Amino acid sequence: MSVAVNASSQPSAAAERSGYLTRLGARIGEVGSALCLGIDPDPRALPAGFPPDVTGIERFASLLLEAAATYAAAVKCNLAFFEAFGSAGIAALERLRARVPPTLPFIADAKRGDIASTVARQAVALFDALGADAITVNPYLGGDALEPFLARNDRFAYVLCRTSNSGAAEFQDLAVDGAPLYLAVAHRVADWSAAGAPVGLVVGATAPNELGQVRAAAPGLPFLVPGLGAQGGDAGAVLASGPATAAPGVGVRGGALLVNVSRGIASAAVGAADPEAAVAGAAELWARTLQC
Amino acid sequence: MSVAVNASSQPSAAAERSGYLTRLGARIGEVGSALCLGIDPDPRALPAGFPPDVTGIERFASLLLEAAATYAAAVKCNLAFFEAFGSAGIAALERLRARVPPTLPFIADAKRGDIASTVARQAVALFDALGADAITVNPYLGGDALEPFLARNDRFAYVLCRTSNSGAAEFQDLAVDGAPLYLAVAHRVADWSAAGAPVGLVVGATAPNELGQVRAAAPGLPFLVPGLGAQGGDAGAVLASGPATAAPGVGVRGGALLVNVSRGIASAAVGAADPEAAVAGAAELWARTLQC
Repeated sequence: MSVAVNASSQPSAAAERSGYLTRLGARIGEVGSALCLGIDPDPRALPAGFPPDVTGIERFASLLLEAAATYAAAVKCNLAFFEAFGSAGIAALERLRARVPPTLPFIADAKRGDIASTVARQAVALFDALGADAITVNPYLGGDALEPFLARNDRFAYVLCRTSNSGAAEFQDLAVDGAPLYLAVAHRVADWSAAGAPVGLVVGATAPNELGQVRAAAPGLPFLVPGLGAQGGDAGAVLASGPATAAPGVGVRGGALLVNVSRGIASAAVGAADPEAAVAGAAELWARTLQC
Repeated sequence: MSVAVNASSQPSAAAERSGYLTRLGARIGEVGSALCLGIDPDPRALPAGFPPDVTGIERFASLLLEAAATYAAAVKCNLAFFEAFGSAGIAALERLRARVPPTLPFIADAKRGDIASTVARQAVALFDALGADAITVNPYLGGDALEPFLARNDRFAYVLCRTSNSGAAEFQDLAVDGAPLYLAVAHRVADWSAAGAPVGLVVGATAPNELGQVRAAAPGLPFLVPGLGAQGGDAGAVLASGPATAAPGVGVRGGALLVNVSRGIASAAVGAADPEAAVAGAAELWARTLQC
């Protein structure tokens, strides 16, 4: 199987909890919420006074972090918003990452995965160069294309399962043996987890029925749920079926559920007299909505 | 459908050739080969005298470009090898890209794809900030997660179909309506192409039977084929079934086929008295093997 290295070297690993889940659980306990603060600074959606360039997005990303971090169980940056400014954008991301408090898990939303020699360098890029506690990865290439991620028990990888975009069904809902592909992915990732790999799933809030099906297929996997706020997902449905009900997620407060809100918090700054206060207010409200 | 914007705004686009394919065809004509020079500088595999850091990989990447570009129809960089050094690595990639001759198409192997607001920034990162002529993308999220790429008719996107890693079958070979998932991807991407989107497929040389099946399912799509050289793929099988046999690829010399060789060229430098000459020799040999 794909994660044989983990399975053979850690025979009792299925019962263990990854270092990341321990840190995440401590932080969820501190804030009492499943809120994941998404920092995706778009130069076309900055408040007045922020230039639509790399200095503007760095300043706004810092504002989001400083105003909202106190309410968040984790912070997630989508790398594309920094990569769009080339090396200067990545340097801005590196400075931002250095300002994330050590008790606040930092997730690099990068959706990586590649053949062996390449994915080893992706793991260095995300876990070592950038210092991510957790990342998002794409399953299409198969489990062996994720091995350097899955071998890092101090870190964590959320595998794309059922995404939040409107066209997610195009391939993810194709029927494989009578069930949609995303459930085949969920079952496979649950197998990797049972063999000791530090993995969870990305499941969008915009498809609550599918979310429930994925939870039934993988009761123990920690979920990272995007799609609330600007994308229109329903918080109640996510809180109902998002938390894990079995190991390894069930022992983590709130069932190890993380619910990401990006634009739903950032947009509060636009047009506000005090952008920092507006962001803090929106984050506090979302944290309360996602209480756990 | 996912690329409705293209389809409606360019009713006769299916008959047109993208700007990239025109440039690629001109270059293939110049060199008479399908060779794509892969530049994936691994700090653990550098010749003597190159430090295993960002200066070492930049120097070696430059050596590869200078020694081998003259034999290549395109050059492909896998971004992970630069991202592993953070912003300094991306700055090195930007300098390397600026040294690629304008007639030589530059492919960013990034395997991207994301929800709408994010993928728009990925397109800026790859096409505008980095200046890639073509990129690789992952189909798992669906066609709408690729739209900003597919809307750029001056550029090109190779969609992962059947990859070259040993575990590629894990999801890609799952049966969808009696045929493997990778063929469902091939058919869908062929539909996007017929609607005018500038797309091709990534199909690994390590699975020649699958390569033939994908060619039959998508006779017109340009292929980017990795897996020759270090990964052990068979050049003869690739040259037999890799070239396009219908529009839009068939009008491009060699059927718009690109066959990537990375380690098979780079490894010639290790232990060589004259690394530049050794690389040039290996590239010339591969170019002849992949004559078209």
